[in-house]
Amino acid sequence: MKPTLSIDGPRLYASLQALGEIGAYEDPYSGLRGVCRLAFSAADGAGRRHVVAEMRAAGLEVTVDRIGNAFGRRRGTNDALRPVMMGSHIDSVATAGRFDGCLGVLAGLEVVRSLNDAKRETLRPVVVAFFSEEEGARFSTDMLGSAVATGRIPLERAYALRDPAGRSVKEELDAIGFRGDADERLTPPHAYLECHVEQGPVLRAANCDIGVVLGVQAICWHELLIIGKSAHAGTTPMSLRADAGVAAARINVRLREMVASGRFGAELRATMGVIAPHPGLVNVVPGRVVASVDIRNPDDGVLERAESELLLFYEEVAREEKVTITHRQTARTPFVPFADTVRARVDAAAEARGLWRQAIVSGAGHDAQEMARVCTAGMIFVPGEYDGISHNPRELSTPEQCANGGNVLLDVLLSFADEAEGA
Amino acid sequence: MKPTLSIDGPRLYASLQALGEIGAYEDPYSGLRGVCRLAFSAADGAGRRHVVAEMRAAGLEVTVDRIGNAFGRRRGTNDALRPVMMGSHIDSVATAGRFDGCLGVLAGLEVVRSLNDAKRETLRPVVVAFFSEEEGARFSTDMLGSAVATGRIPLERAYALRDPAGRSVKEELDAIGFRGDADERLTPPHAYLECHVEQGPVLRAANCDIGVVLGVQAICWHELLIIGKSAHAGTTPMSLRADAGVAAARINVRLREMVASGRFGAELRATMGVIAPHPGLVNVVPGRVVASVDIRNPDDGVLERAESELLLFYEEVAREEKVTITHRQTARTPFVPFADTVRARVDAAAEARGLWRQAIVSGAGHDAQEMARVCTAGMIFVPGEYDGISHNPRELSTPEQCANGGNVLLDVLLSFADEAEGA
Repeated sequence: MKPTLSIDGPRLYASLQALGEIGAYEDPYSGLRGVCRLAFSAADGAGRRHVVAEMRAAGLEVTVDRIGNAFGRRRGTNDALRPVMMGSHIDSVATAGRFDGCLGVLAGLEVVRSLNDAKRETLRPVVVAFFSEEEGARFSTDMLGSAVATGRIPLERAYALRDPAGRSVKEELDAIGFRGDADERLTPPHAYLECHVEQGPVLRAANCDIGVVLGVQAICWHELLIIGKSAHAGTTPMSLRADAGVAAARINVRLREMVASGRFGAELRATMGVIAPHPGLVNVVPGRVVASVDIRNPDDGVLERAESELLLFYEEVAREEKVTITHRQTARTPFVPFADTVRARVDAAAEARGLWRQAIVSGAGHDAQEMARVCTAGMIFVPGEYDGISHNPRELSTPEQCANGGNVLLDVLLSFADEAEGA
Repeated sequence: MKPTLSIDGPRLYASLQALGEIGAYEDPYSGLRGVCRLAFSAADGAGRRHVVAEMRAAGLEVTVDRIGNAFGRRRGTNDALRPVMMGSHIDSVATAGRFDGCLGVLAGLEVVRSLNDAKRETLRPVVVAFFSEEEGARFSTDMLGSAVATGRIPLERAYALRDPAGRSVKEELDAIGFRGDADERLTPPHAYLECHVEQGPVLRAANCDIGVVLGVQAICWHELLIIGKSAHAGTTPMSLRADAGVAAARINVRLREMVASGRFGAELRATMGVIAPHPGLVNVVPGRVVASVDIRNPDDGVLERAESELLLFYEEVAREEKVTITHRQTARTPFVPFADTVRARVDAAAEARGLWRQAIVSGAGHDAQEMARVCTAGMIFVPGEYDGISHNPRELSTPEQCANGGNVLLDVLLSFADEAEGA
């Protein structure tokens, strides 16, 4: 069936550029304009106010819940039915581009605008949502807003989280005026749909327009505290050192080796993003290091095996380097499959529009994986240029790539928004 | 010849404890009380005012030069002769103990007090000095004050150095009121003597009381800037990464291997004290790392060979990790031998007092190596407990160990201070 309605692709792209100016910075290394909207920062507050204003301009009724998640609601012809929700997040890492998260929110808003323009009503209400601190880049807990909304993380525990400067989620939500009064426990929608950039090279390399997302790979984060002995760099013989920096370096090199060896298959990802030695001076052997480990795999069993090997390696390094290594699991999610109905409808919509698509597992975590616990949920991926680079100012999806995602989102949204209860 | 005069050991030790309270902090990891008096910090300012007051109380005439070096002068019976200088530094690394540097300054002051108590005059004037930013822990250039005083570093270049927060030496000297008006170019003294803790395990392990210091080992510092590509940790395949953190880790592990292999002999020291990844987030592949390398060896040729190998390894890592690695040599000093006359007199003084002594090469850099360029200079080492650990709150020399150093300093000072020009 040929679709009769389409979104306004240039309008969607212009809205991505406008939001990307909020929290923008000049990246001195790439010469590009990047985005830094860490959750609950002043820039995030400005971005939120901008999107809320756009929601209201599109006729949506906006509510904000106690963890700062924002929902813009469009009435249905049977307004008592559970809504269909489109969403994602607008917070970013410190060195981001303009697409991650924003596409899902602004494509949802563009779908609403297109329905408005066409005076197209839907049986069910339609909601556009953005969730708080999806990145975990500031408070070390990703998908925070959607995890609170779906009951995985209690509100008070979320409020108490602190950033490296010691500021709490609660204080920072207050500071930007986004600690709302709506109940943080979300009434599950009829369905949840999230359009997102792939953040990887697969779709672009295969020349595909749309990724039909099977699910989100399993993720494990460790925060490591390595304690050795700070000592004078010029005099202390190696045999008497307990160098926490060398211990961290050996773990980092091991992560690389675990991937390169292929003994966990081809899909293992392993990263040490945080390495903070103390005192961090040229002539002092680091006595203490805080470091992070991020490992991911589509297969729960493989990830478990990789984590087990890593735990043994921590012990080996601790013994050999005469340091203590303690770890805290700051994230652990199994593979999350998305609903068959969403996958089938995304596939059908792409086919009807003559788009090339392929099934894909998400390498990154997304709010949709939290929503999948409470309702029918799924995702639509669009390709990214430059090997799908993300969390980087170079992140780029073209106007056409974004429009394709927005159109498939529109089609799938309509299929869910017009079905009666139980359909 | 049996010495007829001795210092007051308990008074010296009490003065070390008193100065150690300035800039003291509770170290949460060791439970010990450490010292943090980074150069030109408020704590350093307080420490300087304390020592200047003690100098004046001992009857010394104090001058401060344009780089903040302070000199307390005691008149000689022929006051026109060049003075004999005793000195060191009172600035510290961020996680220091109470002895490094302070012993040389306060032992010098104790020698003066003992001369005063005994109403012992000297032919030549005697000067007690402390030099600015010996550690290089704040402005990345060690021996800064003595290097300016002896002409190796021009004053304006020193003034322009900035700490990681962007504050300049000149501003910070003004902030603590220690930008003096005396000419920064020191008139070379007749001799320079520095008593110091060994900061290593050799003397304590050999049960020696005094180290007769042959010279200071060669030192080389690199500041590395590694530029890769920040990218999403969950999605970016390893083959497409340019992980600046892994590149730094491989260099750190290589430093360890260069030492452990023994192919540079047993005396190579190699340390990566600074590792600062950007953006430093758990789910972002580090796109940029600033790191430091500190390598040292008593033999210039061996150090050169180690540096050459390292430069080749930087290239290898850059190629393999698809990053760029640029390095800046922030310190490079060859082996500095101390004067035979000082070495012989230290040895003789220790023998006369019945102390065990041994010849030793200094693992750390010292102000004496700068002074050695312009005058007869040498050092006296005392052992440290706990394998001579230093740059650490555990740093400890006993009252007896410190008193031995002070007494040898007194004897050698008198031998130089009573000799006529040309002797």
